[in-house]
Amino acid sequence: MTNPEQGQTPPEILDLPVGIDAGGIRRETDAMGAVDVPADRYWGAQTQRSLEHFTVGDDHMPPGIHHAYGYVKMAAALVNGEAGRLPRWMADLIARVAAEVIAGDLDEHFPLYVWQTGSGTQTNMNVNEVISNRAIQLAGGTLGSKAPVHPNDHVNLAQSSNDSFPTATHVAAVLALQNHVLPELRKLHTALDAKAREWADIPKTGRTHLQDAVPLTVGQEWSGYAAQIAAATDRLESALPGLYELAAGGTAVGTGLNAPPGFAERFAAELAELTGHPFVTAPNKFAALAGAEAMVAASAGLRGVAVPLLKIANDIRFLGSGPRNGLGELRLPENEPGSSIMPGKVNPTQCEATMMVCLRILADDTALATAAAMGNFELNTMRPLIASSFLHSAQILTDATRNLRVFCIEGVELDRERIDHDLGRSLMLVTALTPEIGYDRAAQIAHTADAEGTTLREAAVASGWLTAEEFDRIVDPRAMTGRGGAG
Amino acid sequence: MTNPEQGQTPPEILDLPVGIDAGGIRRETDAMGAVDVPADRYWGAQTQRSLEHFTVGDDHMPPGIHHAYGYVKMAAALVNGEAGRLPRWMADLIARVAAEVIAGDLDEHFPLYVWQTGSGTQTNMNVNEVISNRAIQLAGGTLGSKAPVHPNDHVNLAQSSNDSFPTATHVAAVLALQNHVLPELRKLHTALDAKAREWADIPKTGRTHLQDAVPLTVGQEWSGYAAQIAAATDRLESALPGLYELAAGGTAVGTGLNAPPGFAERFAAELAELTGHPFVTAPNKFAALAGAEAMVAASAGLRGVAVPLLKIANDIRFLGSGPRNGLGELRLPENEPGSSIMPGKVNPTQCEATMMVCLRILADDTALATAAAMGNFELNTMRPLIASSFLHSAQILTDATRNLRVFCIEGVELDRERIDHDLGRSLMLVTALTPEIGYDRAAQIAHTADAEGTTLREAAVASGWLTAEEFDRIVDPRAMTGRGGAG
Amino acid sequence: MTNPEQGQTPPEILDLPVGIDAGGIRRETDAMGAVDVPADRYWGAQTQRSLEHFTVGDDHMPPGIHHAYGYVKMAAALVNGEAGRLPRWMADLIARVAAEVIAGDLDEHFPLYVWQTGSGTQTNMNVNEVISNRAIQLAGGTLGSKAPVHPNDHVNLAQSSNDSFPTATHVAAVLALQNHVLPELRKLHTALDAKAREWADIPKTGRTHLQDAVPLTVGQEWSGYAAQIAAATDRLESALPGLYELAAGGTAVGTGLNAPPGFAERFAAELAELTGHPFVTAPNKFAALAGAEAMVAASAGLRGVAVPLLKIANDIRFLGSGPRNGLGELRLPENEPGSSIMPGKVNPTQCEATMMVCLRILADDTALATAAAMGNFELNTMRPLIASSFLHSAQILTDATRNLRVFCIEGVELDRERIDHDLGRSLMLVTALTPEIGYDRAAQIAHTADAEGTTLREAAVASGWLTAEEFDRIVDPRAMTGRGGAG
Amino acid sequence: MTNPEQGQTPPEILDLPVGIDAGGIRRETDAMGAVDVPADRYWGAQTQRSLEHFTVGDDHMPPGIHHAYGYVKMAAALVNGEAGRLPRWMADLIARVAAEVIAGDLDEHFPLYVWQTGSGTQTNMNVNEVISNRAIQLAGGTLGSKAPVHPNDHVNLAQSSNDSFPTATHVAAVLALQNHVLPELRKLHTALDAKAREWADIPKTGRTHLQDAVPLTVGQEWSGYAAQIAAATDRLESALPGLYELAAGGTAVGTGLNAPPGFAERFAAELAELTGHPFVTAPNKFAALAGAEAMVAASAGLRGVAVPLLKIANDIRFLGSGPRNGLGELRLPENEPGSSIMPGKVNPTQCEATMMVCLRILADDTALATAAAMGNFELNTMRPLIASSFLHSAQILTDATRNLRVFCIEGVELDRERIDHDLGRSLMLVTALTPEIGYDRAAQIAHTADAEGTTLREAAVASGWLTAEEFDRIVDPRAMTGRGGAG
Repeated sequence: MTNPEQGQTPPEILDLPVGIDAGGIRRETDAMGAVDVPADRYWGAQTQRSLEHFTVGDDHMPPGIHHAYGYVKMAAALVNGEAGRLPRWMADLIARVAAEVIAGDLDEHFPLYVWQTGSGTQTNMNVNEVISNRAIQLAGGTLGSKAPVHPNDHVNLAQSSNDSFPTATHVAAVLALQNHVLPELRKLHTALDAKAREWADIPKTGRTHLQDAVPLTVGQEWSGYAAQIAAATDRLESALPGLYELAAGGTAVGTGLNAPPGFAERFAAELAELTGHPFVTAPNKFAALAGAEAMVAASAGLRGVAVPLLKIANDIRFLGSGPRNGLGELRLPENEPGSSIMPGKVNPTQCEATMMVCLRILADDTALATAAAMGNFELNTMRPLIASSFLHSAQILTDATRNLRVFCIEGVELDRERIDHDLGRSLMLVTALTPEIGYDRAAQIAHTADAEGTTLREAAVASGWLTAEEFDRIVDPRAMTGRGGAG
Repeated sequence: MTNPEQGQTPPEILDLPVGIDAGGIRRETDAMGAVDVPADRYWGAQTQRSLEHFTVGDDHMPPGIHHAYGYVKMAAALVNGEAGRLPRWMADLIARVAAEVIAGDLDEHFPLYVWQTGSGTQTNMNVNEVISNRAIQLAGGTLGSKAPVHPNDHVNLAQSSNDSFPTATHVAAVLALQNHVLPELRKLHTALDAKAREWADIPKTGRTHLQDAVPLTVGQEWSGYAAQIAAATDRLESALPGLYELAAGGTAVGTGLNAPPGFAERFAAELAELTGHPFVTAPNKFAALAGAEAMVAASAGLRGVAVPLLKIANDIRFLGSGPRNGLGELRLPENEPGSSIMPGKVNPTQCEATMMVCLRILADDTALATAAAMGNFELNTMRPLIASSFLHSAQILTDATRNLRVFCIEGVELDRERIDHDLGRSLMLVTALTPEIGYDRAAQIAHTADAEGTTLREAAVASGWLTAEEFDRIVDPRAMTGRGGAG
Repeated sequence: MTNPEQGQTPPEILDLPVGIDAGGIRRETDAMGAVDVPADRYWGAQTQRSLEHFTVGDDHMPPGIHHAYGYVKMAAALVNGEAGRLPRWMADLIARVAAEVIAGDLDEHFPLYVWQTGSGTQTNMNVNEVISNRAIQLAGGTLGSKAPVHPNDHVNLAQSSNDSFPTATHVAAVLALQNHVLPELRKLHTALDAKAREWADIPKTGRTHLQDAVPLTVGQEWSGYAAQIAAATDRLESALPGLYELAAGGTAVGTGLNAPPGFAERFAAELAELTGHPFVTAPNKFAALAGAEAMVAASAGLRGVAVPLLKIANDIRFLGSGPRNGLGELRLPENEPGSSIMPGKVNPTQCEATMMVCLRILADDTALATAAAMGNFELNTMRPLIASSFLHSAQILTDATRNLRVFCIEGVELDRERIDHDLGRSLMLVTALTPEIGYDRAAQIAHTADAEGTTLREAAVASGWLTAEEFDRIVDPRAMTGRGGAG
Repeated sequence: MTNPEQGQTPPEILDLPVGIDAGGIRRETDAMGAVDVPADRYWGAQTQRSLEHFTVGDDHMPPGIHHAYGYVKMAAALVNGEAGRLPRWMADLIARVAAEVIAGDLDEHFPLYVWQTGSGTQTNMNVNEVISNRAIQLAGGTLGSKAPVHPNDHVNLAQSSNDSFPTATHVAAVLALQNHVLPELRKLHTALDAKAREWADIPKTGRTHLQDAVPLTVGQEWSGYAAQIAAATDRLESALPGLYELAAGGTAVGTGLNAPPGFAERFAAELAELTGHPFVTAPNKFAALAGAEAMVAASAGLRGVAVPLLKIANDIRFLGSGPRNGLGELRLPENEPGSSIMPGKVNPTQCEATMMVCLRILADDTALATAAAMGNFELNTMRPLIASSFLHSAQILTDATRNLRVFCIEGVELDRERIDHDLGRSLMLVTALTPEIGYDRAAQIAHTADAEGTTLREAAVASGWLTAEEFDRIVDPRAMTGRGGAG
């Protein structure tokens, strides 16, 4: 191989804003020949061919993938530049354009759909073509000429779609989790925990099988919510190490053909430095190309949050049901007009939206896991489905969690009167009498109260087995919660 | 082909009960050599080999498959006998043993597991071997000798596992639906409908978004349940025609090699006569072997019942929640002791069991559909999963539906006092005042009632805009339900 | 109720194009007060509030819902106009604007997300608000004034979100099926059937368990594909009658409160006339509001297509695998550049995209069915998930099917040389010798060929049991397919 | 509370084998009255009532639950005994009987079904009743008398079903993983790894998109399999800490009412000692009763194995397809007779069974996760579905993995001749020529070989651009795999 620097004078790099001031069409070429593309777009022939053959629905490749690909191309260029496989100026130029990709400045130049080739090759080529043409523009060259920066020979150097797409997917997943999902879940936990503390000592009727049961405090109930979210968030976080392992360096089938020795390790180190996340090279590239197990585990982590979140949202809407003919313990914030007829009708809309989001996440997760199982031989060709399912779930989980917190949980209030009144009527407080008057008499009091529709206290006093004062001393719901008695 | 009758004197057929009076082992053979089988079992070498290699969990092939296979072998024998491909005595003998299979008399001789060869060949051979040996026993022959009735040459004549297993699956599915699932669902509908009629004119608070809404009658609510089940049952029934189409006659790859012309049609006609169900031959045998779409549709039919059933069971347990701190409209039958502490605690256990069954059916259905998509070329080799998932769902749906009806729905009673009381407190009855005093005043009354915790009637009279008599005349919940006013 | 015509002089209706020539913001109001909306948008306060509280991901309510809602509002207006509940001019004006909605002219004024209130109320109000303001514009009124056409009192007259959203969902589903999905599936069937006919008499090796089996013709194999798609399409079509049943007229809880007698029937008749599809009123409105079974069945119909489609796409990519080290029977059209290194590498990208789409449809279907099971009491509040899942699946199925047909199936060619060569080497042709020389000798020939790597013909002739001429006469693959022998 | 030792003379404990020598029926009682049970069974009234009301299908509670419950009852008895809440002799007696439960000696006395009360109460009572009666038998008492060992007061002391059933589920899950699943997966990994090492240097054609690609060695391919299974096994193992957290001590609603202070911690410590696994008390009991997230994560771990296992099994059956018209690289062990017609037809039955098992595990996992999301308030009442789904998946995964290893993977052999032959014909070896003669000439050679059906070598030599010797020196498949060249 010749020295890439030889005979090339570095071009002057212009300081041009993103954008092509041209109308009509431009002729681009690939191995199959020429294709017309819109003149104001950076993409090339292969992107255009994909648009022709793979326009399916409105499901576009998530921008997170392009942004992550920006890091991939930047890291590869820098590693190749350092090793002398790319001229330094070209490595820097590719890195500069990649930074624009990462920043989202070129988002409108990535028009492809999810439902394309199963390796994500077309999206990889879209990235290669856009970076190539933008670099050519900055170098004062002719768009579509592939000179001086070639989409394959330079932007894609030492890479294959087969290793770069899984790599970009892992990077995108890590960024989504670290920048969006996990911080938002921690905030949700904080909000739930605050309520648990605020209401730590307010006893209420417990419910098991939906039926009245022994009391607990409202705070205890919400401490359970907080604990569920905290644990699920921790589990989700524990999926990160798998995502840190990158396929890059495996190239076409995992052997690393055409990637120089050490490329995989240096690439991962570069990416770690660029992103601040501890990426490493995957220990087995054949597994990394043919499987997608780290994505399956990460998706299970998202599902692991959706499961308790659905339960919590469902609880909140039931506990807020009413105002008169429901459980009525909670008063949810009123964000939209209730019915124009019925004052006081606050629909638990944030809970409903959250529950739908959770069901969607469960379905996304199933699609992803099934897709991961359907690889063949050296490659899984369900990659775009895997990437888009995960990023979609991550995004709607983030957004729904934020909305639920801000527009519902942080503003939830208790209907203390209702809670106290209901607890006072609960028959299962009779449990506290058992040690004093024995099970049989306690049961008789409870039965009488049930049959006659009175309170336990009324039935107890009427029984003659204990006085009102004794009843009040013994039947102390707060003491039954283990949070200390009223006395 | 020589005349099968020639040179064979029909053996005397003995009148022996099912069972082999022998201990220890018996030597059976197949193409790979000799295998020891338990001497008191009718099965042969291939069944025994399957037991050795495919013991996975406790998931045995559902008996419905063997029973259906009894019909398959009977029909094939009779058709082959009529066409002279089997001696008449042998056709009759096979049919006689097949009748024992159908009756379940040989159930313990079908020990195989679901997780076996994907074509179900081992179960087909199990049936062939058992019928062969039982027929040999009745003909006075030597078990394992394959004479005079050979498992392959005679019992399996003109059949392949590839067509007979899908055929048996369809037959088993039809019998499960016609004999068990559909009748039980019709009974459930009748029970729901009876409640709808009984409670046709009892108004209650409607709930949308779980929140109090305008009233409907209890009977109207239950008429919805009945209508949901009726429609779902009809849809399930509409899956039958697909199941009536049989793969038999396609043999190994769908071309019908080794099955004589007309066999497919005559077989289906025979099976229709034997079972009383309108089976026909599948119009395209290649589709019938490689796909399982009729099973997917039938499974969707089961799921189509599970979906509303889950909703109804969930409603019933919430409407029966309490006794004091729940919705408390329904009183569910008490079948088991509630808590030894809390009298009146009736757990909605039938509803819970039903809901779990419904979730299981949804999962079975997903497994089945995915399996049906994973055939390759001329054969789907996920057949045992398909068959067992469907029959499992069918059985637990039947049983759970029966239990829910007998032990819950038929015994549900209303808490009229609670229903009336809650309805009386509902603020959304204010809707009826709007045409009389205008929206603004009506809203003001409702807001006052909400804020002060009074009834609408109290707030209305206090407002001075109308008298108690006027209120009582105008605010008529039953009239609001469209079922006619109280007056 | 007063005569709506009284005292109102019909305004002059202007002939203004769609669009608001204004910048900045406009003040809109609802029951909770005033809200600022973009001045160039028709929507009002409730839409704006939803945008504030329910921005989740990029999942917008599918346009099909708005277009269907156009029909709903048009039909309601016309029925209300005929009955004198709306002035004739207003009914006509609402219908005129609804026609613009149906035509998609107002698409950019429906910005809401899927993840909103579970009843779809916000989308219903979006439609009401947009139609109101557009009608006000045409009537020369002031945007946001709600006069002379009020979003609730006029556009939503005799409707509730609780009945209109399920109604719009059914209408949208029917239009998607009738206008897009079913026609495209029929075209796919035609394309498959054409190949089946074209290749009707070309024998090839059958494969069961992926292993060589007895032959069939290529056309027989493809006739199975065609039959699978045809049957699945018919099943999908059989879901239409359920979708024709409309919830409209049930209003808030199913009792039809505030809808006049006969409204439901007249509405459905009007909608049928407007759309040309036989819509009818649902027989039980309580079931129609609380359940979504017709959608579950229709979704199962889409899944019922995805299941065989996945199998067929998978077959095609395997049958086209190679060019040298795969099965190599098919030559797929080359739509994109293969690898720049490997000439002849045609990736089965259309098959891959189709398979991913099918997995997505399976997941959408599961989400929809689970959502349908999660209604409570008088309402299912998972409606937007149900609607969007179905319409999403319908769209990607349509598009993927079209692409697969146009860019793959219609251009598939056979590698006759490879097919013939492979068939000639297949050992299982030995089956044809059995009747002539007996099973044992035939098996011996096959074993010899297998062990020595020769053809059957070579082994047969070498055996001395038959001549080359006899072999060629007897071993006729085409005859084994049942499509007639070569002779 | 009185001292439990007072006034009680410890009974003599008899040394009786398991079993009741009685026929007919025995009268047992519970809070609802008397019930007849089979006289030869240890169970009592509540078990019998469950059998009457909850006979659904053939799905029995997995024995793993009873065995785990044995540990729960043993630990509780010992802790209660140490604290003086139970007489020492009674604690020891309960522990002794619990040991019999653990050992499986009482298996036939646990007849209940999965589809029962959602809290698993009936199974808890089944365990309580059986231990009570067996202890009574050993103490010389009267079966059904509940003296001296009462099922509730003694066996269930300080427990509720609501905390003990989740506890038993975690214990059963840990034992299944530690004793069965994980060891078997490690063996599978070892077997795969052995093949990877054995075949480390045998080059073969790589396949991406199913199409011929650059070579890798067979060992590299299998190293990917091994790595996938190893990583999935590690991930599954990482679910253990969540399972080690026990709900015990939370009793009815999580407050621990009726359990003494410190019980939870001492119970977990005791259980850890008894089982040798590091069980701890759950940090938040409200979450532990209302949620099932640790089970969701563990189930995701099982799924995480099923996903690559399905892929691997699918690969193996395709790589073993043929013998003539498939890929034919692998020769799978022949465990059952292939077709009686076609010698050499070895069906990949172990792979098929494994794939079906994997699909079943995916479905079990979905059911479990959905069930975990459907708890309400203080309790999840889908517990039996959760427990049985997990244990079912664990068992069939263990068994299928073992069978696949023993009956397939360990006996797989390579068809070296076929692999070498195919690799020699592969056109993509042309890649190696590019650096020498340039891309264009290399492509021309490849195209010529493709068009004329020759080998690359033939086309290369014919081109005149290089000699046969040069070709052989340059085109070295092994070197392309990175495993070192032939030279």
